[in-house]
Amino acid sequence: MADQNVYDDPVFFANYKKLRASEGSANACVEQPAMFSLCPPAAGLSVLDLGCGSGETCRAFAEMGAARVVGLDLSENMLAEARRQTQAENVSYVQMSMSGLSTLHDTFDLVVSSLAVHYVADFERFAREVYGLLKPGGVFVFSQEHPLTTAPKDGGRWVRDWRGRIRHWALSDYAEPGMRKTRWFVDGVEKYHRPFSAVINALVSAGFSVEKAAEPMPDADTVRRFPKYAKYRHKPDFLLMRVKK
Amino acid sequence: MADQNVYDDPVFFANYKKLRASEGSANACVEQPAMFSLCPPAAGLSVLDLGCGSGETCRAFAEMGAARVVGLDLSENMLAEARRQTQAENVSYVQMSMSGLSTLHDTFDLVVSSLAVHYVADFERFAREVYGLLKPGGVFVFSQEHPLTTAPKDGGRWVRDWRGRIRHWALSDYAEPGMRKTRWFVDGVEKYHRPFSAVINALVSAGFSVEKAAEPMPDADTVRRFPKYAKYRHKPDFLLMRVKK
Repeated sequence: MADQNVYDDPVFFANYKKLRASEGSANACVEQPAMFSLCPPAAGLSVLDLGCGSGETCRAFAEMGAARVVGLDLSENMLAEARRQTQAENVSYVQMSMSGLSTLHDTFDLVVSSLAVHYVADFERFAREVYGLLKPGGVFVFSQEHPLTTAPKDGGRWVRDWRGRIRHWALSDYAEPGMRKTRWFVDGVEKYHRPFSAVINALVSAGFSVEKAAEPMPDADTVRRFPKYAKYRHKPDFLLMRVKK
Repeated sequence: MADQNVYDDPVFFANYKKLRASEGSANACVEQPAMFSLCPPAAGLSVLDLGCGSGETCRAFAEMGAARVVGLDLSENMLAEARRQTQAENVSYVQMSMSGLSTLHDTFDLVVSSLAVHYVADFERFAREVYGLLKPGGVFVFSQEHPLTTAPKDGGRWVRDWRGRIRHWALSDYAEPGMRKTRWFVDGVEKYHRPFSAVINALVSAGFSVEKAAEPMPDADTVRRFPKYAKYRHKPDFLLMRVKK
């Protein structure tokens, strides 16, 4: 199976850039703060960022004093953008699929991955490969789309009452892991759904100790400014884990 | 707050006994097999069963060669039934709340709990107390109602199409932990909802290593015999964890 590379589709890429740049994006308000709060202090660490995109996280780690940062992504578009925006000399980028990590002969203190692992088909193999990329005592922190978001084969939907107020999330297919094709700017974006237990068990089987799980909510102030996030109380959009070698 | 003891309500108790005795109950078909599959071989172990009810699990462990089994429950009705049905001399029963475990001065190789921890208000304290009841290397295995089941404040419901076929589970309030009052044979049964991450984090904070999570599905044969379980593919009803001291 060819690795999906929707980020090199021009329509997708243009829309994605717009989304990430928008004030009050779910990434900026919810996912990124949760992600960084799970990470150990970066000063002096060697860091690998899996699915680094345009290098935002890599640059943040360099600014926080990481000794060395490697960003890995499959998308040429993304890496070109990343290189354009990065001055720091201890940040480098590698074009590589997240399903080929065994060819990366290097080890790190910290591996992070922001909203990318739901594109990985074989999460058990992936977890073993990340384990192999960590030094003893090293930490892996990742965020992914929440299993409640990836579950429905029809893409899922919010059900509203006659006034248009959200009442519930229409949850289906949660217990059936596998590929989900969804429309996200373009047709046929492929993601992989895994129930919570499958995520945990793959990490434990790879040898990791589970240290923390998070299903972050926007804070009250964010909900006041962006009322669209009130619905997260019914279903969070992100799941994050911190695990240790 | 007084500990809830709905099992000593005569209406509840009569209905509950009928439910558990019925062929094809969710306990018999799904929860109990998953529970025992997560437990280590019982031969020679000292076992504590939290929320033992009528002692079914205690007797099963005695038959599997456990050295000693202690069953704990708050309900007199349940324990009277348990004592009536138990011959084995190495099985004993204690009437005690699961929120008072610190007064039990004893340690065990294995602590199990079947469908009881969702009645515990303070799961963090409970996890610490269970940790204290285990010998080093001891294992805690428990099942609980799935967070997707306990989440909705309105009790939750299956949404059907015009032909009566189940389409989805109406998921709400997942991210809001706390008490849920539901009707189950009688009004006002109190349960506590906790998102998945809260369960994991409480166990890890107590000192446990997470070894396995399970969200069991009935097998194909069971679904053929009892088609009502087909809906579990949208939402499992049980969450089980095995953790180690």
